[in-house]
Amino acid sequence: MIKMKALIIAAGQGKRLRPIGDTKPLVSLLGLSLIERVILTAKKSGIKEFCIVTGYNGERVRDALSDGKKYGVDIQYVQNDSWTRGNAFSILKARDNFKESFVLLMADHNYDHKILDRLLKTKIGKDECILCVDKNPRDHLNIDDATKVRTVDHIIDAIGKDLIDYNCIDTGIFICNPVIFDALEQSISQGDEGLSGGIKILAKRHKMRYMALEDNFWIDVDDKIDRKNAELLICNKLKKDTDGPVSKILNRPISLRISKLLLKTGITPNQISVLSFIIGLAGASFFFVGEYFYLILGAMLVHIHSIVDGCDGEVARLKLRQTKYGGWLDSVLDRYADAVIILGLAYGYWSITGDMTIWIIGFFALIGTFLNSYTSDKYDSIFKNGDMAKRSKFRMGRDVRLLLIVIGALTNQILIMLIILAVIANFEALRRLVVFRNKLDGDMPTINKEFVN
Amino acid sequence: MIKMKALIIAAGQGKRLRPIGDTKPLVSLLGLSLIERVILTAKKSGIKEFCIVTGYNGERVRDALSDGKKYGVDIQYVQNDSWTRGNAFSILKARDNFKESFVLLMADHNYDHKILDRLLKTKIGKDECILCVDKNPRDHLNIDDATKVRTVDHIIDAIGKDLIDYNCIDTGIFICNPVIFDALEQSISQGDEGLSGGIKILAKRHKMRYMALEDNFWIDVDDKIDRKNAELLICNKLKKDTDGPVSKILNRPISLRISKLLLKTGITPNQISVLSFIIGLAGASFFFVGEYFYLILGAMLVHIHSIVDGCDGEVARLKLRQTKYGGWLDSVLDRYADAVIILGLAYGYWSITGDMTIWIIGFFALIGTFLNSYTSDKYDSIFKNGDMAKRSKFRMGRDVRLLLIVIGALTNQILIMLIILAVIANFEALRRLVVFRNKLDGDMPTINKEFVN
Repeated sequence: MIKMKALIIAAGQGKRLRPIGDTKPLVSLLGLSLIERVILTAKKSGIKEFCIVTGYNGERVRDALSDGKKYGVDIQYVQNDSWTRGNAFSILKARDNFKESFVLLMADHNYDHKILDRLLKTKIGKDECILCVDKNPRDHLNIDDATKVRTVDHIIDAIGKDLIDYNCIDTGIFICNPVIFDALEQSISQGDEGLSGGIKILAKRHKMRYMALEDNFWIDVDDKIDRKNAELLICNKLKKDTDGPVSKILNRPISLRISKLLLKTGITPNQISVLSFIIGLAGASFFFVGEYFYLILGAMLVHIHSIVDGCDGEVARLKLRQTKYGGWLDSVLDRYADAVIILGLAYGYWSITGDMTIWIIGFFALIGTFLNSYTSDKYDSIFKNGDMAKRSKFRMGRDVRLLLIVIGALTNQILIMLIILAVIANFEALRRLVVFRNKLDGDMPTINKEFVN
Repeated sequence: MIKMKALIIAAGQGKRLRPIGDTKPLVSLLGLSLIERVILTAKKSGIKEFCIVTGYNGERVRDALSDGKKYGVDIQYVQNDSWTRGNAFSILKARDNFKESFVLLMADHNYDHKILDRLLKTKIGKDECILCVDKNPRDHLNIDDATKVRTVDHIIDAIGKDLIDYNCIDTGIFICNPVIFDALEQSISQGDEGLSGGIKILAKRHKMRYMALEDNFWIDVDDKIDRKNAELLICNKLKKDTDGPVSKILNRPISLRISKLLLKTGITPNQISVLSFIIGLAGASFFFVGEYFYLILGAMLVHIHSIVDGCDGEVARLKLRQTKYGGWLDSVLDRYADAVIILGLAYGYWSITGDMTIWIIGFFALIGTFLNSYTSDKYDSIFKNGDMAKRSKFRMGRDVRLLLIVIGALTNQILIMLIILAVIANFEALRRLVVFRNKLDGDMPTINKEFVN
């Protein structure tokens, strides 16, 4: 990962956002402030050192973010007291902090971290800067307010808010070299105090390059409507390609609402995982009783468990705080919940009916369930890279299995339901084995993967 | 992966190997001929096109390898009828086939594919060649017969069999540019008909570079003793860092012997996986009966299953035919075998004693067993990269679990054994969760891994 520092411009007043917050960078968006999102998004691309130029209400921004330790990054501050003037002054204030290439970001722009990932892989000359531009801006973009850009071949030819003949939009995501500082000084001396002025100087020298976005989202949050749009965009991203049908139709819309509420409580994703696990166990414990009334109670709790099971991941992603460990904790707890739920059903049914077959069927239901989880990462990964469409539409996942259990309990048909679960889960396990055969072999040599014991 | 063609020299007579085979490239070494090993090892590094220079018994080599389709590669042949003369003639015969950089290999050299992996990543000028040299040759090397090399700085200074002042050994693994052909012609005109002659010419121009081996194995198989040494080296490589204690001490030494026998039968690794699975199921089916006599029979079969379970991977690696699919088939079948063995034990015990507790304990034994497998790949992978020593010495794996089951069945202590299995397997699952917390988190951002549902 490239080690690069980032400069964040957070000096402006942001008048249009004042109805929701006096200090623009600290205006909240789904559980994080705007500037926290910028920092944590950049951190995902490996940026660990930040210099923030504050201005209007600068002290409040510094108090809120402090030295950055709580985000696992290092933050330094530069105060620009002439924040009423153009943002060229803000950038020049930070001049002494940047002797190498650096990332330049706007505190009020929210963007998909893949944009910066790709930008950081771009090679750049010592006398060049690169700006990310959007050639297909989305409907929500307030075009009057946007900075327009015209590109010719691989460089930027013209830039400005009032540009009429443009072909793309400035996203506010840059990689700059210190050459930008001289360009800004030159531009100020010519009477242009905006960042665009410096860009124009570089463009004249043919040293202002661009990178066009792919289908990645970005949004400039300037007013209440922008913030609403940003919320929609970010929440939309939480729907996953790998979501099963029950998750997609039934669970995700509800879990998203719960997640938004949970965001306000400060509960951590791992705590949500444990909470969801406890709800699952509570449901299973009713199943142990075996009587129909308790089956209904258990079914309700298991269904709630199935919904809340999506919230840990959602909250983690909304707060830009996913961790590998969080993913694993969730997975392992889910496996235990799966097992105890099936055990509860088998025990409850046996204690009421005395029918021993339920134990053998329960075993096979458990085997199938585990095998599905065991292969699910691999199954999803081989269909990644745009191959998703080729995958069987119906994804036999935990969402489907839990719904089956809920329906079985609600209808008091434990034996039949566990037979169905055992059959389809094991059938799915075998079907995946066939899919793997076709996908994993072919002619590719396998250098790393050894036989697993 | 770099697309490069390989030239294999297989023209010589190999007199010293005649006691074991008249056609040296076809002399067998652990289930493959010497030249098959060279081809399949190079294929692991991504080489798909080969040109083989045949000479002595050329037709037999061509008949044996044919067009290479059965190895998933493309093979062309050049016949060198003056194979009694130096090998420079063999290389020159292939001149028209190589207009770009190419890999040069010897048919009788066996080597670790990581050597070529690394060599292919080396940048090379159009007027240079690179030779892999061994600065710490192993004891088995016949030093009298080896080609010695002297390096100075980053280039080769001198080469020859009779070199007295040398610091490393020629491994016979090259990346060449067509510049080698002129050098060989020049060398022949000066009376040196060996490949070393051409190298000397390039060395004089300071254009003969080298790459020193790390701790990778290679061996030149010239006689019966070399072949014995090669067998030992290759078999030694089959022992894995991730082997558990039972596997290491008890199973691996026996499975290696069985694998060597299986090599002769032509059975495929996947067939061995299925065979091992059937043995496991047979063992489990005896457990279902529950009587002590049948427990002993089952225990014996399960122990055989545990041993044979190592053979599929061993045979695959010995035949250089590992596939990702093979690894998966083995894993999934093992999970089913695990489950049916525990089910058999629980059912058998219940049918004899009528004690219901065994079902609940069996469930938890199964949960723990699955969770161990579920986390084992991840557990091993976080300790890779030399971190292996820091790992807890005792690896709770399938080998240990199966031995526990065998001991429990042999001593007729199913209940106690399943309790122990349930406790230690689940304890291990929770212990790994703690290990993951320490290893997976830290400050690293997780870009790819999302919450798993």
